[in-house]
Amino acid sequence: MRIGELSKVTEVPVPTIKYYLREGLLPAGELSSPNQASYGEPHVRRLRLIRALVELAQVPVAQVKDILESLDSDDVPLHEQIGRAHRALTPTRKQTATEEARIAATTQVTDLITRRGWTVEPEAPALATLIETVAAFRTLSQDNLVTLLDAYADAVDSFAALEIEAVTANPTRDQLAESVVIGTILGETLISSLRLLAQESTSAKHWKNR
Amino acid sequence: MRIGELSKVTEVPVPTIKYYLREGLLPAGELSSPNQASYGEPHVRRLRLIRALVELAQVPVAQVKDILESLDSDDVPLHEQIGRAHRALTPTRKQTATEEARIAATTQVTDLITRRGWTVEPEAPALATLIETVAAFRTLSQDNLVTLLDAYADAVDSFAALEIEAVTANPTRDQLAESVVIGTILGETLISSLRLLAQESTSAKHWKNR
Repeated sequence: MRIGELSKVTEVPVPTIKYYLREGLLPAGELSSPNQASYGEPHVRRLRLIRALVELAQVPVAQVKDILESLDSDDVPLHEQIGRAHRALTPTRKQTATEEARIAATTQVTDLITRRGWTVEPEAPALATLIETVAAFRTLSQDNLVTLLDAYADAVDSFAALEIEAVTANPTRDQLAESVVIGTILGETLISSLRLLAQESTSAKHWKNR
Repeated sequence: MRIGELSKVTEVPVPTIKYYLREGLLPAGELSSPNQASYGEPHVRRLRLIRALVELAQVPVAQVKDILESLDSDDVPLHEQIGRAHRALTPTRKQTATEEARIAATTQVTDLITRRGWTVEPEAPALATLIETVAAFRTLSQDNLVTLLDAYADAVDSFAALEIEAVTANPTRDQLAESVVIGTILGETLISSLRLLAQESTSAKHWKNR
């Protein structure tokens, strides 16, 4: 199909498709004449993936490009592909907590990881974010909320076990890698919106008139 | 204290503090002379909250302002304050799924909410995001991952029960409202970074050489 039909099928405007082509997010079509390219089902699929990552999960275009490049390299091990999806979800954040709170948070998080037997790279960006967030709770005098850390950790451990089982059901290595990226990134949007609905419902029951 | 000392205590640069004052995020100091304002402990506290929301949770400044205004209005009911924190976490997102997938997702999400007995406003922004995300999973042929919806919903239901218990322990109404905002917004950063660490660890165990 031509670019106009690709646009119609995916509901993505032609200028946006051209932008993704220019940025290297979407592979070029097959040249059917010197001025005409032809696109197929893989382009439709890839374009839908790009849109979901950019528009729904709101991942910056530069990071989407990096993730898609890793998906297209057969020599990138799965574990590294997960690492790239993770980096897309963990922007560098400024430190906002007090030094005292950060020291306490580092101990608390290190103990948690040891207790759960997690294998985590010391330079994992999510580790820095977790420590900084626990430190922020402490700096903001929310020690009550910090006690929920173990309950959250129990839940994400069970998520990871279910997620790995669900993605392993994919028949090919390429589909598995794509599932890993989608499950990691869009899974966050899913859990976040579910949590807000559960909170809204609980709040409506407890606090409607408070 | 003067603005220079406020900057030193909180490690926030003076121009940034002036920006927050101008935008109305931080209340003005008390005038000690026509050209000099004096700041106290409430300013330190508020500035730390602003930094955590803006820099750590990466909430846009306009939304932080709206949240802080609601915190400062004693007449805003708790349930409405939660609503404002929720809107800060749910930007409007473009639709990226197919119409067919969206219809199926709407049924699936509506059934889930009925099954769980959740009380949710039909126009809750998180509801639209949830439906669009489930629809995106379906559009991207990730039906396997959609089956995890109930497991995620179980977890967030138990989170909400624990969270409401933790924030209710606050002695005053103002502190309770502040806890609700922090727990809702920074709680998301906490859960997200924990989930990435659990995934990294599970991936390292299963897929180190794949």
